[in-house]
Amino acid sequence: MTIAEEDLNLTDTGRDIELDEILKSHIGGKLTVVPSVPLGGARDLSIAYSPGVAEVSRVIADDASKTAEYTWSERLVAVVSDGTAVLGLGDIGPRAALPVMEGKSALFKAFGGLNSIPLVLDTTDVDEIVETLVRLRPSFGAVNLEDVSAPRCFELERRLIEALDCPVMHDDQHGTAIVVLAALRGACATMGRELAGLKTVITGAGAAGVACADILMAAGVTDITVLDSKGILVPGRAGMNSVKADLAERTNPRRLSGAETEALKGADVFIGLSCAKLPEELLATMAPEPMVFALSNPDPEVDPVVAARYAPIVATGRSDFPNQINNVLAFPGIFRGALDAGATRITERMKLAAADAIFSVAQDDLAPNRIVPSPFDPRVAATVAQAVAKAATESS
Amino acid sequence: MTIAEEDLNLTDTGRDIELDEILKSHIGGKLTVVPSVPLGGARDLSIAYSPGVAEVSRVIADDASKTAEYTWSERLVAVVSDGTAVLGLGDIGPRAALPVMEGKSALFKAFGGLNSIPLVLDTTDVDEIVETLVRLRPSFGAVNLEDVSAPRCFELERRLIEALDCPVMHDDQHGTAIVVLAALRGACATMGRELAGLKTVITGAGAAGVACADILMAAGVTDITVLDSKGILVPGRAGMNSVKADLAERTNPRRLSGAETEALKGADVFIGLSCAKLPEELLATMAPEPMVFALSNPDPEVDPVVAARYAPIVATGRSDFPNQINNVLAFPGIFRGALDAGATRITERMKLAAADAIFSVAQDDLAPNRIVPSPFDPRVAATVAQAVAKAATESS
Repeated sequence: MTIAEEDLNLTDTGRDIELDEILKSHIGGKLTVVPSVPLGGARDLSIAYSPGVAEVSRVIADDASKTAEYTWSERLVAVVSDGTAVLGLGDIGPRAALPVMEGKSALFKAFGGLNSIPLVLDTTDVDEIVETLVRLRPSFGAVNLEDVSAPRCFELERRLIEALDCPVMHDDQHGTAIVVLAALRGACATMGRELAGLKTVITGAGAAGVACADILMAAGVTDITVLDSKGILVPGRAGMNSVKADLAERTNPRRLSGAETEALKGADVFIGLSCAKLPEELLATMAPEPMVFALSNPDPEVDPVVAARYAPIVATGRSDFPNQINNVLAFPGIFRGALDAGATRITERMKLAAADAIFSVAQDDLAPNRIVPSPFDPRVAATVAQAVAKAATESS
Repeated sequence: MTIAEEDLNLTDTGRDIELDEILKSHIGGKLTVVPSVPLGGARDLSIAYSPGVAEVSRVIADDASKTAEYTWSERLVAVVSDGTAVLGLGDIGPRAALPVMEGKSALFKAFGGLNSIPLVLDTTDVDEIVETLVRLRPSFGAVNLEDVSAPRCFELERRLIEALDCPVMHDDQHGTAIVVLAALRGACATMGRELAGLKTVITGAGAAGVACADILMAAGVTDITVLDSKGILVPGRAGMNSVKADLAERTNPRRLSGAETEALKGADVFIGLSCAKLPEELLATMAPEPMVFALSNPDPEVDPVVAARYAPIVATGRSDFPNQINNVLAFPGIFRGALDAGATRITERMKLAAADAIFSVAQDDLAPNRIVPSPFDPRVAATVAQAVAKAATESS
């Protein structure tokens, strides 16, 4: 199979958009706060502000649980970043990260119907970030961590989950992992194959790579090999932080070692989550009919047109190729479902349910170039939210 | 003069509104965040989010000053409270304070055209509040402090002004003081009197009382007597914190001591900023044709109908009586003007300019029952913003 011209959506792309148009559309930012109550006259003001609002404050002072009913906070998602790992740009700081966080907040409303505000922090100290969000806890109802560098992101997410009695999720880890799992289910269904038996290679042992390995193992994939820039993660290898060392123990059952060449020989699935290029000749060494997810953005690990010469299933992170692995398929519905259910945690069960829900929407119309639904399919967020809310109730 | 029935707006009041209607209108909170860019298709997403947004991040990473152009933050007002002095309800905590802060954020948009988010803090420690806002600095462009108890509010405001390179104002202090000064100018113009000569009594030496004394002195009022719950502030009196001791030195030129009875004898102006009642018999001891500002909310220090038997000018904080001294006349225009001018401070000159601007709008239609404009007069915020922006340029 090759990717047909008609599968490409080359006018509907980021590549053909001029910098000038992009910058213009960002002037003044991408969010606006609008009152949701009338404020046109004195009576309106007496209800929404003084003296009427005092009654609402009194009700909450008597019963803090009423906060959820009479304020926006408990359904408000804070999109939090310290700007240390922004897109492919690296540690560019909180101000430069803000356009991304505003975009994320905009997507929460557009796709999940949730209010969201970006909070960017002028500190990269995990203790200080946790402390800051604990102090701000009454201001929001959920935390979407974003663009925090690995391995700090693992500790930060864990500590925030402990410290805050509300849903916390680092989307670069779990949003990506959930959509990858959904896409892999879609690919397997298309090809008539089973998830469990797939020899899977993940390049990149950062936020997304670690979370992908974890969710695939939770979904039953047993043979996963993870690589970082120094090669295959295998117990005893030099240059691994504690997260990688732990992952090495739990993956790589055949105890492979060495470079990508070793890992890809006979592999069924390639999942690229680093910027490292995948040479075409290695594609030829994979098992027959492999699946290639080249997810680096904006430049995939391998040109998807080239990959399609070897692999019947090719996915990227880009909107201008088929099979876009896009987090927007997951995070709006996940947070919406968690908040709808009143959940205080986003559990493994909820994440697996989200992946299944995305797959269930794709199932109606599966094809090698449609292993995931379009992010603009209105069923996606609703189906994910419902599944996540149900899983939240079951796991509590 | 008495307040005529037609001056009262008794249907347009908080008093006749049922609790049920108030609570219903607060369900889900009073704010919503809306994307200000289109997100309906893949091309939109490529501009507002990945990959297009990376270009915007890159521009800001290269030149941090571009944050003001391409994000919402530098024109975003954070309404910040620790919930220690909420309306007349006292220290009811951040959650119960949130409905008030949401209302304030809603008013910033409705009256000043500014985006605003409420941030309520689960700490009352001044060091911790300063530290938290310093860490969050890249997220907003101005701080409206609200409902923080005295005397902590004075230190907190001072420390935040030092620590943050953006406008910071504690509205309970300065918003109130600015509108009181504007109203006093209006009252003087109506009565053909001069501000400077007015013997002025302020009851309440909290946030609003201290700021009122300060702005009136800055405007040229020389004879100001301030009282707290223990009586007149006079040097050497027992039971004064450092703020009150300082104020005692700077006010009370006749060195009066004792209770309200002593202060009110022959006074031209009463400004009530505490909950202490003003007995009718004391009104009779004031100078001829006095001005009575009974600003406690929702229950004025003296019934304005009673006060009107003695005073040709009566003002309250309520929307159902004439002459409402309402902070909404000031804060939207002040922050709007400061941000329009790119000011990093709200100076005394800007505050005086705001008061003059409010007075200038009232001047077109002055009367004993119209010493301040209506908060719904659309000229108010625009005129204040313009005057404040001009003053900002002059003082820098």
